[in-house]
Amino acid sequence: MKEVCPRFESAMSMLGRRWTGLIIYQLLQGPQRFCTIESALGISGRLLSSRLKELEENGLVDRTVYPETPVRIIYELTDQGEELEPVMRALETWSERWMTSSSC
Amino acid sequence: MKEVCPRFESAMSMLGRRWTGLIIYQLLQGPQRFCTIESALGISGRLLSSRLKELEENGLVDRTVYPETPVRIIYELTDQGEELEPVMRALETWSERWMTSSSC
Repeated sequence: MKEVCPRFESAMSMLGRRWTGLIIYQLLQGPQRFCTIESALGISGRLLSSRLKELEENGLVDRTVYPETPVRIIYELTDQGEELEPVMRALETWSERWMTSSSC
Repeated sequence: MKEVCPRFESAMSMLGRRWTGLIIYQLLQGPQRFCTIESALGISGRLLSSRLKELEENGLVDRTVYPETPVRIIYELTDQGEELEPVMRALETWSERWMTSSSC
């Protein structure tokens, strides 16, 4: 039997971390400020900061600092991050069909 | 800003559990015995048993007992589980392109 590819395994475990997939999903809407992501997801600032840092280290998210007053920091998906869109869209389609929820 | 749909969130958190995505990926190959999944994934029997039970409860996996000697128990994806194939294939494509690993 063909073994499960370690690359797939790494991808699953990276995206499967709590909040990570949701942050990517949120950033598919375009570049955003920290506070926008924070309020859209209802995640704590501390946790969001930690997850964004991991995503940056994994090459999925870029962070740009605009030295204005007050300073503006924008997060956006890299090409590698953007290319997760088919995964996210497929999961969106599936969840709309199969997950029960009255609120969306 | 459009809020993240709770259904998507539920799907992410279910599939994001350690091993869960990999078990589904493995079962896309077809119905299988417990020990086949166990050895393909290198997961402990106890953990696999617990994950399969959750997947059954969530309606993604069916478990059929064939009362032979010795008893044969087969696990397979339900329709709901099978329909995750586009998600898994998209993730497979992405991970082949972006995740680094020399072993596959």
